[in-house]
Amino acid sequence: MKLLTILFYIQIITYCSVFSQESTRKELIFPDIFGLKTIKCDFHSHTVFSDGLVWPTVRIKEAWADGLDLICITDHLEYRPHEDDVKGDFNKSWEIAKKEADKLNILCIKGCEITKRLPPGHFNAVFTKDNNKILKDDFYESVNEAYNQGAFITWNHPGWLQPNSIPVWYEQQSTVMHNKQMQGIEVVNDKYYAPLAFQWAIDSNLTLICGSDLHNPSNMDYKCENNSHRPLTLVFAKEKTEESVKEALLKRQTVIWHENLLLGNEKYLNELFENSLKISYDTATYYGNKTAVVKIENQSSFDFEIVPLEVETGLNLNSIGTLYGNSTNIIKAKYKGKFEITKLELPIIIKNLLIAPEIPLKTVIIL
Amino acid sequence: MKLLTILFYIQIITYCSVFSQESTRKELIFPDIFGLKTIKCDFHSHTVFSDGLVWPTVRIKEAWADGLDLICITDHLEYRPHEDDVKGDFNKSWEIAKKEADKLNILCIKGCEITKRLPPGHFNAVFTKDNNKILKDDFYESVNEAYNQGAFITWNHPGWLQPNSIPVWYEQQSTVMHNKQMQGIEVVNDKYYAPLAFQWAIDSNLTLICGSDLHNPSNMDYKCENNSHRPLTLVFAKEKTEESVKEALLKRQTVIWHENLLLGNEKYLNELFENSLKISYDTATYYGNKTAVVKIENQSSFDFEIVPLEVETGLNLNSIGTLYGNSTNIIKAKYKGKFEITKLELPIIIKNLLIAPEIPLKTVIIL
Amino acid sequence: MKLLTILFYIQIITYCSVFSQESTRKELIFPDIFGLKTIKCDFHSHTVFSDGLVWPTVRIKEAWADGLDLICITDHLEYRPHEDDVKGDFNKSWEIAKKEADKLNILCIKGCEITKRLPPGHFNAVFTKDNNKILKDDFYESVNEAYNQGAFITWNHPGWLQPNSIPVWYEQQSTVMHNKQMQGIEVVNDKYYAPLAFQWAIDSNLTLICGSDLHNPSNMDYKCENNSHRPLTLVFAKEKTEESVKEALLKRQTVIWHENLLLGNEKYLNELFENSLKISYDTATYYGNKTAVVKIENQSSFDFEIVPLEVETGLNLNSIGTLYGNSTNIIKAKYKGKFEITKLELPIIIKNLLIAPEIPLKTVIIL
Amino acid sequence: MKLLTILFYIQIITYCSVFSQESTRKELIFPDIFGLKTIKCDFHSHTVFSDGLVWPTVRIKEAWADGLDLICITDHLEYRPHEDDVKGDFNKSWEIAKKEADKLNILCIKGCEITKRLPPGHFNAVFTKDNNKILKDDFYESVNEAYNQGAFITWNHPGWLQPNSIPVWYEQQSTVMHNKQMQGIEVVNDKYYAPLAFQWAIDSNLTLICGSDLHNPSNMDYKCENNSHRPLTLVFAKEKTEESVKEALLKRQTVIWHENLLLGNEKYLNELFENSLKISYDTATYYGNKTAVVKIENQSSFDFEIVPLEVETGLNLNSIGTLYGNSTNIIKAKYKGKFEITKLELPIIIKNLLIAPEIPLKTVIIL
Repeated sequence: MKLLTILFYIQIITYCSVFSQESTRKELIFPDIFGLKTIKCDFHSHTVFSDGLVWPTVRIKEAWADGLDLICITDHLEYRPHEDDVKGDFNKSWEIAKKEADKLNILCIKGCEITKRLPPGHFNAVFTKDNNKILKDDFYESVNEAYNQGAFITWNHPGWLQPNSIPVWYEQQSTVMHNKQMQGIEVVNDKYYAPLAFQWAIDSNLTLICGSDLHNPSNMDYKCENNSHRPLTLVFAKEKTEESVKEALLKRQTVIWHENLLLGNEKYLNELFENSLKISYDTATYYGNKTAVVKIENQSSFDFEIVPLEVETGLNLNSIGTLYGNSTNIIKAKYKGKFEITKLELPIIIKNLLIAPEIPLKTVIIL
Repeated sequence: MKLLTILFYIQIITYCSVFSQESTRKELIFPDIFGLKTIKCDFHSHTVFSDGLVWPTVRIKEAWADGLDLICITDHLEYRPHEDDVKGDFNKSWEIAKKEADKLNILCIKGCEITKRLPPGHFNAVFTKDNNKILKDDFYESVNEAYNQGAFITWNHPGWLQPNSIPVWYEQQSTVMHNKQMQGIEVVNDKYYAPLAFQWAIDSNLTLICGSDLHNPSNMDYKCENNSHRPLTLVFAKEKTEESVKEALLKRQTVIWHENLLLGNEKYLNELFENSLKISYDTATYYGNKTAVVKIENQSSFDFEIVPLEVETGLNLNSIGTLYGNSTNIIKAKYKGKFEITKLELPIIIKNLLIAPEIPLKTVIIL
Repeated sequence: MKLLTILFYIQIITYCSVFSQESTRKELIFPDIFGLKTIKCDFHSHTVFSDGLVWPTVRIKEAWADGLDLICITDHLEYRPHEDDVKGDFNKSWEIAKKEADKLNILCIKGCEITKRLPPGHFNAVFTKDNNKILKDDFYESVNEAYNQGAFITWNHPGWLQPNSIPVWYEQQSTVMHNKQMQGIEVVNDKYYAPLAFQWAIDSNLTLICGSDLHNPSNMDYKCENNSHRPLTLVFAKEKTEESVKEALLKRQTVIWHENLLLGNEKYLNELFENSLKISYDTATYYGNKTAVVKIENQSSFDFEIVPLEVETGLNLNSIGTLYGNSTNIIKAKYKGKFEITKLELPIIIKNLLIAPEIPLKTVIIL
Repeated sequence: MKLLTILFYIQIITYCSVFSQESTRKELIFPDIFGLKTIKCDFHSHTVFSDGLVWPTVRIKEAWADGLDLICITDHLEYRPHEDDVKGDFNKSWEIAKKEADKLNILCIKGCEITKRLPPGHFNAVFTKDNNKILKDDFYESVNEAYNQGAFITWNHPGWLQPNSIPVWYEQQSTVMHNKQMQGIEVVNDKYYAPLAFQWAIDSNLTLICGSDLHNPSNMDYKCENNSHRPLTLVFAKEKTEESVKEALLKRQTVIWHENLLLGNEKYLNELFENSLKISYDTATYYGNKTAVVKIENQSSFDFEIVPLEVETGLNLNSIGTLYGNSTNIIKAKYKGKFEITKLELPIIIKNLLIAPEIPLKTVIIL
């Protein structure tokens, strides 16, 4: 009788497996830089164990299909609207997700969202050991416990509930900063980018963090039809391991990918740009004029929007050009000067790489 | 203290609502026919309350966004792998979903999947009153209880676990058919179409039913990138109400939309085709020849694939033409005969409208 | 022998027609406003008869497939780089195109581009009678002849060849303006929008004109893969006739559609917005708070990007929402105040409707 | 005065170049096989110099943007409907195209279409030296001249003008075959695949050729919106040079890519399939059962549609799986037998690789 029941379940599982046969992953391509691996991470997500709307394994399947390498499960500690139906302690959602993650070679990081009213608002602790111990009435005690567990702590969506969504920095933020217990700040949360948080990160040496804060299934919020993608944090780490990623976070080795923008330190953005391109050069002379016809292959998945700068070299390329990802793009540059030159340098700005709020990266394409 | 807790939750909810602001629905357009409304239905889906992977409200949000009018929640009675963590009786998933459905004007039908080993396999009961009472060890008792509650009962995925997925009809099926307790059969389940089940439906006067059998989030299985859509049952009902849909099911007033196929009775398919088109006519004479240049507007969301039949009228249109949905399509037809004609009739088959397995609809376009 | 030749050609034509059987048009939907028809126009295009790269009939087929109602053929008078191979006078490209246009019910307007060096640059004359007579060495004589033929005259791409593409206004522009012989200005040419030209149009009562200036095939420059569309001028005319469109141009009844922007007079933009939407209202009370859940159907093909304004009514919708075209969109608005209100007014700006350079439309959605 | 004219043109050209700045090429990826390069070719296209609708340079720009390596310009000799306006001998379209091709590193092959009434219909001669000499009243004389110039000769669209488009083989075809002057046959022309021509090619050792036969701009006939692509001939050649491609054609080293089908010799199809995949293996045991979870990376641009074969090894994978291109795909295979096995072999058919009409490739995936 017992055996029959077991056999019954085997059959069910055989059947169910049919439905998962066509999972597909399209790789998101960003070059490795400075000898480090570029790890694609989402540091903020929810499941039915707090107010999310999917079973924990879905977060893993989505991460895999969306081209990620790492995801954090960060269910709320203080807010669990499904608790009448969904039981289990504060580590349970991670435990369920972790098994699926191991099969798919996704790093699944344990975390939780310390969910306090304003001030100070919400904070994520990731790389935690036991979320149950972090739930405390007092904000500082929670942060302290997470910190003692070795967690990396981030201030989430700093503009949340503020007028016009403009971030407000409270005393509590200053305190945990002073205690070195707040290492990161969410410059992008879901579809919302907070320029002021970007500036604060620069001024206070906080790690740039981005979190999807997914509650819905991923493809419901980031619809292919609307050409939107989940926001990511690119982490430049020695290896694709938990330890390496954590080390890289502490060294602030991150860049944020939000919509068609990359936000980050100049040196990382410049290196990502240069390592994404392959340039081949060809010239043609028309009516005595020098015209450079350049083929630029962009091997990354990112579309770079470039604008040439007018300078004394005489180059003039009077329009924006988009170097589409996974494509080869043809750019014509005209030389207006009188003299032969053998190496053209095209000074440009890249409109959608920001090294600070509203400040695009300046660089030079050498043709 | 209690007040503070309440206020706390208000804040959370305010925040969460931000994430659901950009839900979008693209209407699926099929014409109403014979004075009946064309209701877009999915009769088979799961939630975390059985082996599904989403919270019940997700099934409603997805139904709305995917352009549906009606969805059934049909969690397994006998198979609940999450039961260590997810509690609640067999009506609970429907109760949660129903509240969301009312807000979005989606019909949410209570149902359950009677989940027995082969034979006889799985059956859906929809329009049930109390799922808890339907769970019984004995298959016939379960069906009987569902029937007595007024449920519409369907044999699910008849090829499940069979060699090469070819359906096998067992004694149990004959028995419940004989008792008039099985009214429908899943000709399409998820991505799988069973031609033999289609033939049985025709031979035995069973209602053609199609179920997505969703366990994952909808957009994970039916990816926009792969141009796939969730399979639907079109029900031709007097009104968009539970009662009307049930009545229409009992009268077998359905057509199945699977990939780029419509499967159903000739009269419904023909009427859907004719009511989808607007034809405007124009002629031009070249070198003494008669050429009909026809603009055909296809107002539905469905792409009809037509192939002209060569007949004695002298028309020859030697290739397939696709009448793309939501578009106007230009077709050129040439007249080879000698005489003036004032009304051209173009006999065609529509390759992707099937009135029986492998038998496409034949019809005539009158130009 | 002669007969054989004729029969030979018949056969060829039969064959060729096969290749044009699947032309498809997806309608671009903008509402009619103020009792006028909204005509979708492109006022600037080239063919192999000047430096364009397609046969004139292609401009018509493209216009039809791209959802346009009207196209101008405006080949250069002074620049014909293919003239060793392509013969024919300055009206010939229009004559060839016109025959195809009549079949497809597209308005095909005769025009030409008066192509002078800077200053003053290039001008389009559309609604011309005989382009051959307009070719003159002297700029003023050309414009005068075009004007006397009843042409509508537009200054093309005012930033062409200027440093950083910033428009420069020359004495010649002042002279023809003074003579009332220049009625329009290209605020958008191809992919380039000139904010200064927009301002000049407002200041000098010039008609806002947009031209694709197509030389390549349309789908080569505006690729579906890149989600780009050909820029259009929407003209609000009494009827879809040449005369009505010309009358509307003289009355400056136009709006420009460039990328995801509409540029134009406040009254037209506001009316387009209001007539694109259908709003249905529903409320729900959570924890004593008033939350408006609004379904907004956007029946146009345009995606409106709205941002709520914070005002004393207590409404706060702290994020951008996109009302996607051909879709129903759900927006949640929260009421923070204490009193019951029966009609909610949501003051917004629409980020991508510009009534002047950098000035978005302000309006109110009445829920 | 003369100087002024020259300066005038310089200015114009400066301007025009602006419009060609954003040309983009997305590489079509097929693996090189058997130490040969896989060259992507289109052997049939038209320009305004016969009945095509684009300037010759457009065929090159399109070829580049569409991911091709080689294109033939094959204007009709006997049919030139634009000849009142477009002058130039039968080599002119190739000469114009060739200059553009050299800039973009596209192989541009000189050819022509010998355009006779039925019988025998149309033949392409490619790799010709002087098209002017090939125009003759007599079909055999034309073919003979082309052959003597070293051309590769193909029978085009064998079903053209035949009832139901079924190919008819005439005496003339036999004669030129017998003379070894017909080496290829168009199995696919534009959107039309002729299975009978495929069978003839196999039976008579003719090279499988595919031609787009483009008259319109490429993106007008193969619309991104409809997910259609231009049909291609993949040629397996020692190098990307004219000589190597011609040699490979004579050795019948080709495969045709039509819609979602590859047509060709078993050895090429099998090698393309195997060299497109990277397989990584993982196992998991559930309830004593062996389940193979396999990640298969498909590095090509082609979607392989696989169906498992039931065999005595006990493997059962009862559904179709699509291995999407440029993606990693997860497949679950279940082992039903009793014994441990260390290497799983999954016998499959690939539905959309055809080694003869209606005969799919059978192969084995080794897990």
